[in-house]
Amino acid sequence: MISARRTEETRVSDSTVRRLSGYYRVLGELLEQGENTVSSYQLALRSGSTPAQVRKDLSFFGQFGKRGTGYDVVQLLAEIRSILGLDRRWKVCLVGAGNLAHALFTHKEFEREGFVIEAVLDNDPAKIGQRWSHLAVETVEHLARVVRERQLVIGIIATPAAAAQDVADHLVSAGIQGVLNFAPRKLSVPPKVSLRNVNLAIELEGLSFALK
Amino acid sequence: MISARRTEETRVSDSTVRRLSGYYRVLGELLEQGENTVSSYQLALRSGSTPAQVRKDLSFFGQFGKRGTGYDVVQLLAEIRSILGLDRRWKVCLVGAGNLAHALFTHKEFEREGFVIEAVLDNDPAKIGQRWSHLAVETVEHLARVVRERQLVIGIIATPAAAAQDVADHLVSAGIQGVLNFAPRKLSVPPKVSLRNVNLAIELEGLSFALK
Repeated sequence: MISARRTEETRVSDSTVRRLSGYYRVLGELLEQGENTVSSYQLALRSGSTPAQVRKDLSFFGQFGKRGTGYDVVQLLAEIRSILGLDRRWKVCLVGAGNLAHALFTHKEFEREGFVIEAVLDNDPAKIGQRWSHLAVETVEHLARVVRERQLVIGIIATPAAAAQDVADHLVSAGIQGVLNFAPRKLSVPPKVSLRNVNLAIELEGLSFALK
Repeated sequence: MISARRTEETRVSDSTVRRLSGYYRVLGELLEQGENTVSSYQLALRSGSTPAQVRKDLSFFGQFGKRGTGYDVVQLLAEIRSILGLDRRWKVCLVGAGNLAHALFTHKEFEREGFVIEAVLDNDPAKIGQRWSHLAVETVEHLARVVRERQLVIGIIATPAAAAQDVADHLVSAGIQGVLNFAPRKLSVPPKVSLRNVNLAIELEGLSFALK
């Protein structure tokens, strides 16, 4: 029951953070388009939220729009950037060097938001030693040492399902603080470690359910 | 307001479908491990839900476990498979032939669950004509014709953000019924078309928020 309650709590804060991520994206687009201010109505419309929800979310973080003019785009963007921790540099360890890992490695948005992959590891001899931009793929046997020596904070698991829990255990015992899991298996990590899961098939299953 | 209300409704059914996807994965693991039956307690524990939630979700779809023995693994697996529409074949059109698209193309779980990619399209002359397994990358100029002639049902958008809405419009007018969007941009599609978004950066933002 304790673990179930914990999941519920995580889900609540999750949806707020997701909406902030949404506002962050819309504000970035508005900035590109040369807009100086944005109303809660506009922000809601473009991020799939409601004006009341936008005002509630932002007031919770101490931001208040001015009646008639709305929010200052540059200021709000900087504030959400800081709330989401995107004004820092996060050192990332990528475990698994398959197609998905390579897609993540070359995903430009990650680096732009401060997530810097500083190690790529795999257990496949054919992959170990491969050059990925400025890095070389290393053996997963060095995982603990690499995490400790380079002070990596976030681990991305892009391995097959069967290896994922073992990799997570090694990441955790080496001191990683957050795990982003792409393997289609539910992982268990201690409460002090943040865990996020992305399951690509689940989204397709949602579509097929809707289309039936 | 109408669009906001619609989002709320979609979110509710979403979480149920997500939990069903979770049970489906756990049941698959139990089957591999040779288990014949599973209790709502076990299913809850392994999928991060609660026993009451499991019973509620499954009774909604007409499944009742037997007191003392629980659910039949094979039977429940088959039933959820059918509920999620995974016992059918879904013809998929993949737009974009970059690293992410290639990772999706080689993702074995998709094909196993009946999602069959029958076309890959891009606008980059360097990519058009490339062989991807049994397919050749085609020019995105043929998108509408390809979707119609091969009767493709689901479109996956794995293009840069700037191209995504245009691609979505073309997919929709060619008759696609569901869109899975990986581009970091909010898309608008008519209500009759199902839309799912996967934003890889949002999950990392959730982690960085939690780690701050």
